[in-house]
Amino acid sequence: MQIAMVGLGRMGSNLVRRLMAAGHDCVVFDTDPASVEALSGEGATGSESLADLVGKLAQPRAVWVMVPAGGPTEHVVGELAEHLDAGDTIIDGGNSYYRDDIVRSSALADRGIHYVDVGTSGGVWGRERGYCLMIGGEGDVVGRLSPLFAAIAPGAGAAERTPGRTGEPAPAEQGFLHCGPAGAGHFVKMVHNGIEYGLMAAYAEGLNILRNAGIGTAQQQADAETAPLAHPEFYRYDLDIAAIAEVWRRGSVISSWLLDLTATALAESPDLHEYSGRVSDSGEGRWTAVAAIEEGVPAPVLMTALASRFGSRGLDHFASQTLSAMRQQFGGHAEKPAE
Amino acid sequence: MQIAMVGLGRMGSNLVRRLMAAGHDCVVFDTDPASVEALSGEGATGSESLADLVGKLAQPRAVWVMVPAGGPTEHVVGELAEHLDAGDTIIDGGNSYYRDDIVRSSALADRGIHYVDVGTSGGVWGRERGYCLMIGGEGDVVGRLSPLFAAIAPGAGAAERTPGRTGEPAPAEQGFLHCGPAGAGHFVKMVHNGIEYGLMAAYAEGLNILRNAGIGTAQQQADAETAPLAHPEFYRYDLDIAAIAEVWRRGSVISSWLLDLTATALAESPDLHEYSGRVSDSGEGRWTAVAAIEEGVPAPVLMTALASRFGSRGLDHFASQTLSAMRQQFGGHAEKPAE
Amino acid sequence: MQIAMVGLGRMGSNLVRRLMAAGHDCVVFDTDPASVEALSGEGATGSESLADLVGKLAQPRAVWVMVPAGGPTEHVVGELAEHLDAGDTIIDGGNSYYRDDIVRSSALADRGIHYVDVGTSGGVWGRERGYCLMIGGEGDVVGRLSPLFAAIAPGAGAAERTPGRTGEPAPAEQGFLHCGPAGAGHFVKMVHNGIEYGLMAAYAEGLNILRNAGIGTAQQQADAETAPLAHPEFYRYDLDIAAIAEVWRRGSVISSWLLDLTATALAESPDLHEYSGRVSDSGEGRWTAVAAIEEGVPAPVLMTALASRFGSRGLDHFASQTLSAMRQQFGGHAEKPAE
Amino acid sequence: MQIAMVGLGRMGSNLVRRLMAAGHDCVVFDTDPASVEALSGEGATGSESLADLVGKLAQPRAVWVMVPAGGPTEHVVGELAEHLDAGDTIIDGGNSYYRDDIVRSSALADRGIHYVDVGTSGGVWGRERGYCLMIGGEGDVVGRLSPLFAAIAPGAGAAERTPGRTGEPAPAEQGFLHCGPAGAGHFVKMVHNGIEYGLMAAYAEGLNILRNAGIGTAQQQADAETAPLAHPEFYRYDLDIAAIAEVWRRGSVISSWLLDLTATALAESPDLHEYSGRVSDSGEGRWTAVAAIEEGVPAPVLMTALASRFGSRGLDHFASQTLSAMRQQFGGHAEKPAE
Repeated sequence: MQIAMVGLGRMGSNLVRRLMAAGHDCVVFDTDPASVEALSGEGATGSESLADLVGKLAQPRAVWVMVPAGGPTEHVVGELAEHLDAGDTIIDGGNSYYRDDIVRSSALADRGIHYVDVGTSGGVWGRERGYCLMIGGEGDVVGRLSPLFAAIAPGAGAAERTPGRTGEPAPAEQGFLHCGPAGAGHFVKMVHNGIEYGLMAAYAEGLNILRNAGIGTAQQQADAETAPLAHPEFYRYDLDIAAIAEVWRRGSVISSWLLDLTATALAESPDLHEYSGRVSDSGEGRWTAVAAIEEGVPAPVLMTALASRFGSRGLDHFASQTLSAMRQQFGGHAEKPAE
Repeated sequence: MQIAMVGLGRMGSNLVRRLMAAGHDCVVFDTDPASVEALSGEGATGSESLADLVGKLAQPRAVWVMVPAGGPTEHVVGELAEHLDAGDTIIDGGNSYYRDDIVRSSALADRGIHYVDVGTSGGVWGRERGYCLMIGGEGDVVGRLSPLFAAIAPGAGAAERTPGRTGEPAPAEQGFLHCGPAGAGHFVKMVHNGIEYGLMAAYAEGLNILRNAGIGTAQQQADAETAPLAHPEFYRYDLDIAAIAEVWRRGSVISSWLLDLTATALAESPDLHEYSGRVSDSGEGRWTAVAAIEEGVPAPVLMTALASRFGSRGLDHFASQTLSAMRQQFGGHAEKPAE
Repeated sequence: MQIAMVGLGRMGSNLVRRLMAAGHDCVVFDTDPASVEALSGEGATGSESLADLVGKLAQPRAVWVMVPAGGPTEHVVGELAEHLDAGDTIIDGGNSYYRDDIVRSSALADRGIHYVDVGTSGGVWGRERGYCLMIGGEGDVVGRLSPLFAAIAPGAGAAERTPGRTGEPAPAEQGFLHCGPAGAGHFVKMVHNGIEYGLMAAYAEGLNILRNAGIGTAQQQADAETAPLAHPEFYRYDLDIAAIAEVWRRGSVISSWLLDLTATALAESPDLHEYSGRVSDSGEGRWTAVAAIEEGVPAPVLMTALASRFGSRGLDHFASQTLSAMRQQFGGHAEKPAE
Repeated sequence: MQIAMVGLGRMGSNLVRRLMAAGHDCVVFDTDPASVEALSGEGATGSESLADLVGKLAQPRAVWVMVPAGGPTEHVVGELAEHLDAGDTIIDGGNSYYRDDIVRSSALADRGIHYVDVGTSGGVWGRERGYCLMIGGEGDVVGRLSPLFAAIAPGAGAAERTPGRTGEPAPAEQGFLHCGPAGAGHFVKMVHNGIEYGLMAAYAEGLNILRNAGIGTAQQQADAETAPLAHPEFYRYDLDIAAIAEVWRRGSVISSWLLDLTATALAESPDLHEYSGRVSDSGEGRWTAVAAIEEGVPAPVLMTALASRFGSRGLDHFASQTLSAMRQQFGGHAEKPAE
């Protein structure tokens, strides 16, 4: 079927490629003409403006917007709405906050325009592996667009079938799911990323414990400010972290795609020295924590994982200074210099 | 090659089956004669006592002990040592604390007996999938036993090769790894399980947030003791948790074997009502936390995951009572009854 | 000076009493005539409606609103604004979200009405001890009202002077502080309560560890699902929690008012059996966590304390069920029944 | 009564001064003759060796050991035991691990020597304020020494009496408590310090949130790697942290001695720039966490506070590098440089 794509960055371009590979007809636009030209060369129909793009679509139209969340998405959706007609559909495939979907969907509904939000996971590997799609919006609209989602998703063969599931593979088994009304797709994607933060932290903390398993062989300092290591004989391992990540990939309970990637990173650079350790966070982890708080659901692991990222960027500095100042006040403890 | 197995529970029996399937010659013993008989029927050589078992082995002997950690392992290793000779090897494949390995290995070394500790992951699926093996001990001894480990491990084909790895697959790529000297295998397995706790908690917390995404549709209570939900319109989703776990299995960043199992559990029982939510912990998560503390390595996610398990069993009760008592004291706040 | 009080609950009434005791002239209103009558009998000027109250005040008027946050405050402020004139001031002394202050202050400024937000701490003890006041609003307006704040606050004598502070005691040393523009008072009060959650959790967790210090004397279960206590001989104390809270009140680093209250509660009921342990939270702890998240400031202790409260109310149930389900799937581990 | 003090550092010397001020007869020893001489000048009886010290005491003797925990205490106690007789008592007032007390007490009991462990809190302020004493050992021995403890403790007047307590003030109300048998004193002191870590972290995190309340006025970066601040208008406060710490000292729910000290530190240096933020930990916080883990008691706040200290010293570095490496692998996300 016909689909338009606005925003031809890495993600947008790769979506178009998967769609075309499945036989869909893609009309594309980007503010950078070179991106449009590149995909035109691969079989897409280029366009010069949003108006031009809309003009090249048959009704009811479907336009997939794949631009940065926040202002850019707001802008493109607003302008698109000017050109579209009742019955057309805008699909937001970016990382929008699900609350914006709810507001946006309601505003567009007043003009008869449908709105579908799609949380998309898969990263730089998605073109090859397919993308996992979490979808929000009206059921019949999402249903009509299913062939597009099926083309983008990995398909049922990407994982062994879950025991107990029978019959024709459900969409969830193919890698896409209509989660609920407006915002539900991005809500589920948000929590997906919140979980991702927790998983990543679990691996990272564990590997760090392994990496420091030789602390007992270091010269032990003995002063009133340092907790002595009671049994240095139990911490004398010099472990090969890259090999450990590798061995866990096969047969262990903690095998995962994130572990596969970790093994890749460690195979390239066993001590990861090219990373400074300042870890970014891009919104969804924060929003997940806020959702947990507002729901009153305890999510201490996910929140702690988020806090660790903030800490990695030095944002705990004043708190730490406060602790040292208190210790100085009550115990006369001077700070120890870095080793 | 020849190998003896002591302890023919589910794990021990399945190890024997994988070993025999690879052509190894297994001599087996268990205090339960029926277990011995069962495996004899499958091709193993049965024995009637540890002495009998040892007598049936050619030197240098290798005896794999697969009995519960702690007292039982201590007992079997001790008795075996009475019957073995210098040059023989005892392999502890259970869940021993790595510190016990260090002590035990040292004691056996005085008698010329080698000791190898093997952390084994794979659970009830290991017979089919193979087991991930984390191994500690002397390098040449471990090397000599490698054909056994290779038979038990999943093999290189169990996962796609990590980019950047070339040549003959290393043992880690086949699913077994010599991690270091005595205790190193169980140390790595311990941290493996600590990570497992963190991963599990991340999924569990995230799914719980999804499950409570409809809290805005419930009647909102308004009293001074309840934080009101400022925006109930953002929490009106009725999500299909089983389908969400399923869709994440394909193409998403958080796909993993634990997620596969979660999807299986939810496909069987979407609300998991047959579980009371009292979560056990079996030692390794605690030991991992202790190792982090002794190393001075921050592991707040792993420790918080552990604390959540303790809390699930009601062990936070007095702490919670204390909080309510404080609130009563300073604010005259009465506790609210359960809904 | 003259001041009006709207809302004569425990807090409002006690504020009026402290104000009158300091010689201020109080005009009071409440929807419950009995409350008005009671304070009239103590020297306040009663009124029958907001209009009546406003009519009894000389310009520029100052009206302190002490009603529940959210809808009730919104309503009273809105109605008051109808009756007030440019140059008058509304003081919100409740537990409003500071963001509401910012919005409200801006709306009232359009009509020339000043808005002052006052975070008030002191609980049921405030009438006697005085209240700690954290104040937001325009500097000159707050300055003009200072005699009122000074009457409500505990005064400089309530604590020993901080070393290094000299001269006339600053307002902060008397127990009230102009923190910044609109919302700053409630912002600081919000974080104050966030800290309170953390402090309370620290005491509660510690006391719980003490209470369970005799776990080594209990019969130890030995099964594969329970982490055995390696050294029961180190956990054989039967500690007197009430006495411990008491002894810490004098000379220890952790003495505090919250500890005083804890000692009181434990003196009344050493095992706190009358508390179910379902701990409420009333908003500020959540908002503090959200502020930390939005600022990108790591606050893992405060967030974990909040999560513990959620957990105390059973909101971790589905997460715990999920953990048990995973354990069943990978290890065949059945849940253990409650003891 | 007569008491000997071994170890005349700051703590030991100040204990002697409080004891002498209360009329007790002190015999003192330190490896540094100058310390002995100083206290002799204040009225103590000096000695030249442990043997000399013991020789100057009437039976049954009581010797208070106030030297660093671990090796030094072990050494002094061992040598003292050579010189003492059955019926004498050794008091360990240092920061010993309570498990060492249990072992030591048992060994000394074989020779008829009593052992009393005393956890001492009060820091550099103790001489003036008195020390809070948590005591373990045999009841009659502790009872006999009570006049000494009473002299060191702050006394009943140091805090208002807890409502509900009547009659002659109990020892706990005077600031010393016999907690239980050998080790109980240091066990309670250990948890005391664990709580201290949690309290300190709560204040530090909260103050850090306040300090960053102006983040909305900074230029906002907008890129895919940074979570944008949705509402900068809510984060435009420039708060006076020192004044806030001060105002909370009077009338607020979170007033405490630690807050008093924090206010002092901030009055001296409002931005604490002389502190690097590398926070030490000296053992008890770690042991408290281990006790919680071994008891199976959830202490997520105390453990998280501990982890934050480890993190402040950079021990999370490899974990953070791992997170950045994973993000690079799945999303092609480059790390952002420090601002």
